Amino acid sequence: MDLFNNNTAQPKATHQFNEQEQYGLYKSIFNRRDVRGQFLATKIPNDVLSRILYAAHHAPSVGFMQPWNFIVIQCPEVKTKIHQSFTLAHQEAQTMFEASKQEKYKNLKLEGIIESPINICITCDRNRTGKTVIGRTHMKEMDLYSSVCAVQNFWLAARAEGLGVGWVSILHHDTLKATLALPDSVVPIAYLCLGYVSHFQKKPELESANWLPRRPIDELVNFNGWGQEARNESEQALIKALKSNQTFPQSFHP
Amino acid sequence: MDLFNNNTAQPKATHQFNEQEQYGLYKSIFNRRDVRGQFLATKIPNDVLSRILYAAHHAPSVGFMQPWNFIVIQCPEVKTKIHQSFTLAHQEAQTMFEASKQEKYKNLKLEGIIESPINICITCDRNRTGKTVIGRTHMKEMDLYSSVCAVQNFWLAARAEGLGVGWVSILHHDTLKATLALPDSVVPIAYLCLGYVSHFQKKPELESANWLPRRPIDELVNFNGWGQEARNESEQALIKALKSNQTFPQSFHP
Repeated sequence: MDLFNNNTAQPKATHQFNEQEQYGLYKSIFNRRDVRGQFLATKIPNDVLSRILYAAHHAPSVGFMQPWNFIVIQCPEVKTKIHQSFTLAHQEAQTMFEASKQEKYKNLKLEGIIESPINICITCDRNRTGKTVIGRTHMKEMDLYSSVCAVQNFWLAARAEGLGVGWVSILHHDTLKATLALPDSVVPIAYLCLGYVSHFQKKPELESANWLPRRPIDELVNFNGWGQEARNESEQALIKALKSNQTFPQSFHP
Repeated sequence: MDLFNNNTAQPKATHQFNEQEQYGLYKSIFNRRDVRGQFLATKIPNDVLSRILYAAHHAPSVGFMQPWNFIVIQCPEVKTKIHQSFTLAHQEAQTMFEASKQEKYKNLKLEGIIESPINICITCDRNRTGKTVIGRTHMKEMDLYSSVCAVQNFWLAARAEGLGVGWVSILHHDTLKATLALPDSVVPIAYLCLGYVSHFQKKPELESANWLPRRPIDELVNFNGWGQEARNESEQALIKALKSNQTFPQSFHP
């Protein structure tokens, strides 16, 4: 007997997507890349861009706050200023890595600000719906997280439309804020480069470059508390399923 | 002449998903709901749960840090403790709203901790790959944002599998951390309730309840800087496309 669930209604079969639809979602998740070096000049049609923005706008938001704005940047002067901020920050960053990694770091291409036809800054207006927000009363960062969810929707929709996105975070926060004239209450969450690409990398670039390996997912899953391993049959079966990596149809696989 | 792009290669038609695949992604984005009151007791199969976790694990992460862990919670004692933390925080929250909204707030169902068969806490280990992380040298919050991207992947994959997710943020951070025995360096990002549902709401509950309206997306898009409206033909066409709400095939529409 399960003390915690006495609702015996059954879920509707229609709630689950059909295989083609599921494939579309998982394909986007597994083939999304952080694009830096493969941008093309090809113009992005407005109907494509509007669908991607529409997807971002349908992210979850705390208290239905919708704290995001989307600043679409094509002006060469603005892009140049942001690129200068990147160049400075990138030089500063080099010295932060241990000596053995500095050379490798220097050779990584980490942004496509100028080459991508459109840059977009997704922001969070912390005052959007007043001081008190449902769900933000105790965790003040929830509005920032809502805007991050918009970024991820944007990224996945772009991938489905055949567009690459690169998130540039090696920037000085104050320069970014001043360049885009953001008010005090508005936080820049993500500075994104958007464009068609020559190709999508098969794997994340930092994985291919042996900067870091993909972590085995079964080592990231615990039960009921930090570090607690599977103890009952059901928990052990989940770990086994994660290890086997066989729970997707072969065609789904990244 | 475009001074910034001299790459004249064309994108491959195969980069764009076919219509069925795009539909799957957009369907998940537009039909995802923050579920509180519709959870069923139905057991979640391990292969379904493992696919959702696998999707979360393929979120973008700064410097390929993969800072997330997934704590799967089915233990009634743990759920009860979290629910107690919610109850306390919820009572405190009531008094924070202006008088006219307090009654409405009290009547909203804001969590499904006990009824949902599985709770999952997605965390961020800020020390995962050492102190210096590519892309986090200047924006220290990037690892937190990576874990939020994992939450959004989790949520979308769950929807495609026919499962509802509710994000509970009306909790005391310290109680959550203590209950799950999280180390100092680990931040709880999202406490999620997961389960099959009796039905998915057509619209977000706070929209249906007239707590707040959906914002018109065209009012959230600016160009090259905060508050700057469309000035050229292309920018005006984007705003027109966003206003028309006609850029999706009718069948895609939320």
